[in-house]
Amino acid sequence: LACSGVFYYKRQYLTAYAATATTLNQQQQQPATEFPSSNTFKVNVLPRKDLPTYRLDEVKKHGKSAERIWVTFQQGVYDITDFIEGHPGGNKILMAAGGSIEPYWHLYQQHENEETYEMLEELRIGNLDPRDVDKDDLYANDPLRHPALQVLSQKPFNAETPSQLLIDHFYTPNPLFFVRSHMPVPKTHRVEIDGIGVKKPLSFNVDELKKQFEVVSVSATLQCAGNRRADMSKEKTVQGLPWKGSAISNAKWTGVRLRDVLVAAGVDPNDKRIKHVHFEGADHDTEGQHFGSSISFEKAMKSEVLLAFMMNDEEIPLDHGYPLRLVAPGIAGVRNVKWLKKIRLSDEESPAFWQQKDYKFTEKINYDAVPAIQEYPVQSAFVIPSENITVKRGLTYLEVAGYAWSGGGRGIIRVEVSADGGNTWQRAELEQNPDEDLDHMWSWTFFRATIQIPPNVKEMDLVCKATDRSYNTQPETARGTWNVRGLLNNAWHHIKVNVV
Amino acid sequence: LACSGVFYYKRQYLTAYAATATTLNQQQQQPATEFPSSNTFKVNVLPRKDLPTYRLDEVKKHGKSAERIWVTFQQGVYDITDFIEGHPGGNKILMAAGGSIEPYWHLYQQHENEETYEMLEELRIGNLDPRDVDKDDLYANDPLRHPALQVLSQKPFNAETPSQLLIDHFYTPNPLFFVRSHMPVPKTHRVEIDGIGVKKPLSFNVDELKKQFEVVSVSATLQCAGNRRADMSKEKTVQGLPWKGSAISNAKWTGVRLRDVLVAAGVDPNDKRIKHVHFEGADHDTEGQHFGSSISFEKAMKSEVLLAFMMNDEEIPLDHGYPLRLVAPGIAGVRNVKWLKKIRLSDEESPAFWQQKDYKFTEKINYDAVPAIQEYPVQSAFVIPSENITVKRGLTYLEVAGYAWSGGGRGIIRVEVSADGGNTWQRAELEQNPDEDLDHMWSWTFFRATIQIPPNVKEMDLVCKATDRSYNTQPETARGTWNVRGLLNNAWHHIKVNVV
Repeated sequence: LACSGVFYYKRQYLTAYAATATTLNQQQQQPATEFPSSNTFKVNVLPRKDLPTYRLDEVKKHGKSAERIWVTFQQGVYDITDFIEGHPGGNKILMAAGGSIEPYWHLYQQHENEETYEMLEELRIGNLDPRDVDKDDLYANDPLRHPALQVLSQKPFNAETPSQLLIDHFYTPNPLFFVRSHMPVPKTHRVEIDGIGVKKPLSFNVDELKKQFEVVSVSATLQCAGNRRADMSKEKTVQGLPWKGSAISNAKWTGVRLRDVLVAAGVDPNDKRIKHVHFEGADHDTEGQHFGSSISFEKAMKSEVLLAFMMNDEEIPLDHGYPLRLVAPGIAGVRNVKWLKKIRLSDEESPAFWQQKDYKFTEKINYDAVPAIQEYPVQSAFVIPSENITVKRGLTYLEVAGYAWSGGGRGIIRVEVSADGGNTWQRAELEQNPDEDLDHMWSWTFFRATIQIPPNVKEMDLVCKATDRSYNTQPETARGTWNVRGLLNNAWHHIKVNVV
Repeated sequence: LACSGVFYYKRQYLTAYAATATTLNQQQQQPATEFPSSNTFKVNVLPRKDLPTYRLDEVKKHGKSAERIWVTFQQGVYDITDFIEGHPGGNKILMAAGGSIEPYWHLYQQHENEETYEMLEELRIGNLDPRDVDKDDLYANDPLRHPALQVLSQKPFNAETPSQLLIDHFYTPNPLFFVRSHMPVPKTHRVEIDGIGVKKPLSFNVDELKKQFEVVSVSATLQCAGNRRADMSKEKTVQGLPWKGSAISNAKWTGVRLRDVLVAAGVDPNDKRIKHVHFEGADHDTEGQHFGSSISFEKAMKSEVLLAFMMNDEEIPLDHGYPLRLVAPGIAGVRNVKWLKKIRLSDEESPAFWQQKDYKFTEKINYDAVPAIQEYPVQSAFVIPSENITVKRGLTYLEVAGYAWSGGGRGIIRVEVSADGGNTWQRAELEQNPDEDLDHMWSWTFFRATIQIPPNVKEMDLVCKATDRSYNTQPETARGTWNVRGLLNNAWHHIKVNVV
């Protein structure tokens, strides 16, 4: 891939891409090398004439059992043997022995700074033959992405919807839907069903699904459990990709009801032995471990849970689970497994890492002490303005807007905004899917309000907060919800407005 | 009734009643005149020898169309004609014309102070014949209550469970279960079902129910929507009975499934026309308006929703809806209609005052702007210590305990306590109903923790907060949830501890 080895981080919002959905679809066809490069951090390791050139086969001989351990990075070859002991991440670095360290580095943001690259360069012993560069790229099959996406990591690909485009469309255009991947985009065709209570183990592809079951649609918002993580780190540093507030999008999903498929597999809806349904994706890590997750059997049998093959009336894009993904409305994004490969009925939760350890927050790493996240708490955030802004004195009103959403289908019953840090509130106008009711509201809510700018203020502390159908509200700060993984931050959202 | 006309308010916690459930049941048989009188406000209007005595028939001639308006209060007769214009409540006072003002006064707490009684006494024109005292008492059929209940109003009867007894029993003993009544306790025997989709209108009493349907039990907590209102008024004054934090109790309810009864009435569970189920109680106001409320048809058809005739394995007490009440677990107390009289299937919500206006909070009294409260937000509060307390310097640890609960069956997944106002937290130990799972937890959760008292502190700001199955948490303060009705206060609960 042309853009391999180019890192983007701390990317600012790109106004140049505030285009319409149509334009965006056209832009998606452009090559990835045209990604805007301003305000991004980029490393491009070039050959050094003072050093020898090696083929990849030679590098592979210096794997983790060898006397000297080599790795490659772009066009560099490095002997890291003497560094291993001093590596802050311990001997995890050995996973890259005899090959490229790139796939591993992308998993750990702390590598992406100048000091780390300088340190690596000191271990340089050669150049990788240009013919072998990218041969080791697990992400070579990843699709081209829309250049307006705000990229947090390229490998695996993780990107937010451009924040100021977020509420231009109630249904987020597919090319702008936020992307959360844990591993390279895989290829997959068939899905298998097995486990407790399955009388007729099934195997099918999308075409077979379409023929055998009723095709239905559901309007549903997906949100990354790390959305607004960057806000939480203002309270105290957290770990993980620094999602701002646009790791949330809404789409019309079309597919077949999971329950119809399970019943066709001979599953009795009243089978008390079945407690959970596991989903496995075709995406996998370098050791062959597939992505996996589970939801409760009770949820799986609800009419809104789909095996989806279309997104906004188009074939599901590669980044969103082509050819088939689970859509479990109201449940954390991570459970909506993409690139479906296996469905298994069980009396226990999925044993997968992403169910049992990742996406959990507990003090003292006692993972058993808390249940895996399923339904979301109530959330809201401003989109306009999207950052701390400056307005001219004399301006009387400020238009603000954003989104709100809650898990479990609990509709948003009110969003309030404040211009004074939460001392006084005014109700915002809401835009909701007219086909949904307050107890089955899988789509997000947009809010808009006109805030009066008080005369003689130097700054305003804008705040928004939402209340859901169960009258849950957002916590005032992250003081009581802070966790080192930065998950589920739903504290009141603040925007500072300077008046000059 | 012996205790008629005796007011209790600002009652402190009564340690003398920290007894076991068995003892409490025995004590309930004692006459109400033995209520402890310390720390209570009491008015007892006696005959005055300087004034004439009237029969009630004579008083009735001075009703609202008369030239001179008379009212009675206990053994006093008053001519209020010249006061009507100056009455802060306007001519509402005329509702009492020709009879006792007591039923009306009890609805408005502001009357219950010495100044008001002195003002009334100035209008005294006579004594009511002792033979007629209490004849006009709409509450004459109210049952005797347990003396340990913390009474907020006698007529209608509203009382909290004594806070320090609240977590002595996972199932609150019936005599100590908090009582929320809107009107006098009625008599009722038969229930009728009608409305949309009812093919066989039914009428039944409890004995007939028991014979025709499966008898089942559910463990469920009920909470008054005004629980912890007193806390909210610290933010800014609110209206309503100042419930502290014990307007919540838990019981094992036994009855028949509502859905079984509806199906027997010919209701099709998939009838899309039916959206709501109305419930009407036999309790009514002086103008014949019956208490009423509704829940969604979807909730009504859930297996946990009962028509209950037993509470903790005893016949439901009069105060809790004898002979039959609705128990809709996870839903606001007010919807769990007592003294059931009528069930009606409808395409609209109940038009009753308690559904449409009371129990709603909205800015500018725009009742249509918000939906009626159904499911609860997450809640927790300390019970031990129950008030601001003083401990001796040198004490190293402090035991704290309380309850947590959330609506919709969302189990409590953690309770955390803080000794420093919320800067640092420690997890509390939880006690839950082992027969319930996290997605169907209708019972409350008890929490206990041992807090280390830091050396050299003068006071501690104890805080508790809970997180539910959907990862909703409590708001830090009532800044964002304050409403003039003081409903649904679930802000972090603070207890001040002085160290001397």
